[in-house]
Amino acid sequence: MTDLSTDPYKGVRDFYPTDWARMQAMFTRMRATLAQWGYEEYAASPLERAELYEAKTSEEIVSEQTYTFTDRGDRRVTLRPEMTPTLARMIAGKRREMPLPARWFSIPNVFRYERPQKGRLREHYQLNVDLVGAGSAEADLEVITVATDLLKSFGAKESDFVVRVNSRALLTAACTAAELNAEASRAYLHLLDKKNKMPAEEFAAAQAAITAKDPLALIEDAGTSPDVAREKKALLDTIEALARRGVGNAVFDPTLTRGFDYYTGIVFEIFDTNPENPRALFGGGRFDRLVALFGGDPIPAVGFGMGDVTLADFLLTHGLTVADTDGRPELYLGTPSPEDIPGAQAFAATLRAQGSRVFVNLTEKNLGDQIKDAVKRGIPLFLAYGANEVASQTVRMKVLATGEEVGLPVSELPLRLRTGS
Amino acid sequence: MTDLSTDPYKGVRDFYPTDWARMQAMFTRMRATLAQWGYEEYAASPLERAELYEAKTSEEIVSEQTYTFTDRGDRRVTLRPEMTPTLARMIAGKRREMPLPARWFSIPNVFRYERPQKGRLREHYQLNVDLVGAGSAEADLEVITVATDLLKSFGAKESDFVVRVNSRALLTAACTAAELNAEASRAYLHLLDKKNKMPAEEFAAAQAAITAKDPLALIEDAGTSPDVAREKKALLDTIEALARRGVGNAVFDPTLTRGFDYYTGIVFEIFDTNPENPRALFGGGRFDRLVALFGGDPIPAVGFGMGDVTLADFLLTHGLTVADTDGRPELYLGTPSPEDIPGAQAFAATLRAQGSRVFVNLTEKNLGDQIKDAVKRGIPLFLAYGANEVASQTVRMKVLATGEEVGLPVSELPLRLRTGS
Repeated sequence: MTDLSTDPYKGVRDFYPTDWARMQAMFTRMRATLAQWGYEEYAASPLERAELYEAKTSEEIVSEQTYTFTDRGDRRVTLRPEMTPTLARMIAGKRREMPLPARWFSIPNVFRYERPQKGRLREHYQLNVDLVGAGSAEADLEVITVATDLLKSFGAKESDFVVRVNSRALLTAACTAAELNAEASRAYLHLLDKKNKMPAEEFAAAQAAITAKDPLALIEDAGTSPDVAREKKALLDTIEALARRGVGNAVFDPTLTRGFDYYTGIVFEIFDTNPENPRALFGGGRFDRLVALFGGDPIPAVGFGMGDVTLADFLLTHGLTVADTDGRPELYLGTPSPEDIPGAQAFAATLRAQGSRVFVNLTEKNLGDQIKDAVKRGIPLFLAYGANEVASQTVRMKVLATGEEVGLPVSELPLRLRTGS
Repeated sequence: MTDLSTDPYKGVRDFYPTDWARMQAMFTRMRATLAQWGYEEYAASPLERAELYEAKTSEEIVSEQTYTFTDRGDRRVTLRPEMTPTLARMIAGKRREMPLPARWFSIPNVFRYERPQKGRLREHYQLNVDLVGAGSAEADLEVITVATDLLKSFGAKESDFVVRVNSRALLTAACTAAELNAEASRAYLHLLDKKNKMPAEEFAAAQAAITAKDPLALIEDAGTSPDVAREKKALLDTIEALARRGVGNAVFDPTLTRGFDYYTGIVFEIFDTNPENPRALFGGGRFDRLVALFGGDPIPAVGFGMGDVTLADFLLTHGLTVADTDGRPELYLGTPSPEDIPGAQAFAATLRAQGSRVFVNLTEKNLGDQIKDAVKRGIPLFLAYGANEVASQTVRMKVLATGEEVGLPVSELPLRLRTGS
């Protein structure tokens, strides 16, 4: 028999403890910031009925980018490519009993069948933040502010990123003013979304087939259209209000559309200002008609998503780090001989009962090699615990970063570990 | 168009915020206990190459209980039914560079295509704890002690559960002593694993077809077999050592085998002592030959898994609860009129900057209805923030559980929230 491969499935990641500690540190920071805004975490299975993505809930309409299969009971199942349809389904499922507005977030893994390349995996984690049941500009303002607060909570400055804002309602009104019909308007919005992914000439030709104008010209030439004037004012008011609330880096971008058909109002993306990192970090917008696909009256909603890979790239680019050692062992308990292990475990139990994180040696290595092992594992403190220590009830604790050693009674150790000194 | 269904896919769960808070509280407790033992968290994608389960890594050999499908690149993909093969794959992948022993845990969701019924979902979360690279009895002792510590960390007493322990090595030696060949031995172990799932007569008949003896008789009648004597002594020594370390509820159960073929030594299960809850809470054992299926020398390993559904049942049965309000909003900021919302958001920003979790009203409800909304959401404190409060720089904070109100300067509020009084 040949050996089994140790590779993971193509395009997905293994998270070894140091990798996962970094992910968890990002998630912990997000959770803390969102809790301060009153957002509560929800979750769902990655398995969804395929029909959820075949209605108008998603751009992933029987797309080549979804994982869809048939189960043994002949049900068509999709691994969720995004969280918003699930959010809408869950809100709709409890709309009668649930207090609205709901401030919700989730950090699901989402799946797309893509050719693996830098930053484009088949599975990634995506923070989703949504404010459901509030249709006001206040709700738009809050969600965009939350998005910027998240980046600031990681230490980012306003000069590190820019918030590009547009309005689907404004674009649609401008298309109507330019006498594009519904089909042409929709084609125009889809084309704009693909602009950065196609050669300039190809884009220009495709645009010319619909209208001679770029989006800004379309909006500015709308003349006396009251819809265009109203939506433009609303959008510029929002950008001004953002500045008053401490979001000074929001700008109007008439070419921004977002891919999803479900957006109805404001749309926004947050970009890294570093030109080497040109992808959107966040994308979101208002989707006031999605929940009603499950029945009942429309429930307005606004939200955004952010992927773990782009966030990690952003943090790296700007030299921002997140402490990821919270759950790691703080003390390595060495054993002079294997016979000392039961005693060391008993001693460790008393330290654990007082909240310490203790790693006990189980090997037959000598103490010198155990110290090397502690260093390799990144555990900051070492002490040997054997017959001498049991007899004297004193230990010598070694700070591995400095080599410094301190002798102390065992009774003082828990306090030393708690205070980290 | 008919409305979309709000149901999740069959056999999986939606986690609304209160449901997920309960799950996260369980996970947080597990993480804290395991960190104290020096265990570090890892993770992996639920997507695995199907071949991982088709070798001897698992009982799920092309089983009807796995979700397996073919991707668009003609790769056969399985949604992991258990975590141990992934653990072995990841350890094997870095065996040259990784310090051993490794103390690892993970809390993956795992998938089985089962007929949904109480406690048997198609997806559940399963804590996996493994100690890899240590073959000693000390390692067995540690892992079983960790399992019991986890239950105790939730407030369980020893009288609430029992640890049933057996040894695959002992059973195998007893089969050999009884002159069963390898095939008959394996059939016998599989039969024992199924004992509780089949009628007594059917089991007796199937056992009689292999040997006249039950496992205890098989062991006790082994006479002078040195293998049986050695393995039996090792197992009883382990049970005695557990008692010395504070695990007084471990018992020898010669009929315990566990379903997986990969076990090689000690096997154990933890059962609820409540007779109405007869399922195993934890199951685990030693699997010293699994990692070597990926090449190289064997790396000994011992570990266990525990499902979220059985744990939650156990906690409920024994009246044990886990605080799940850590991330919930603590203050509802009411707005006398919608014009007060921007001011309330600005005030909330100052509270958030000092660590408070604040929910701001965005609706046009009157204050009385906002208070009802706060109660419905379970937010403990309420205060209105409008023009009067801005002018006077004082607020009246209402404790919703008691109706008590206290007036205080806005400057004192952050401290009051921090100290919870």
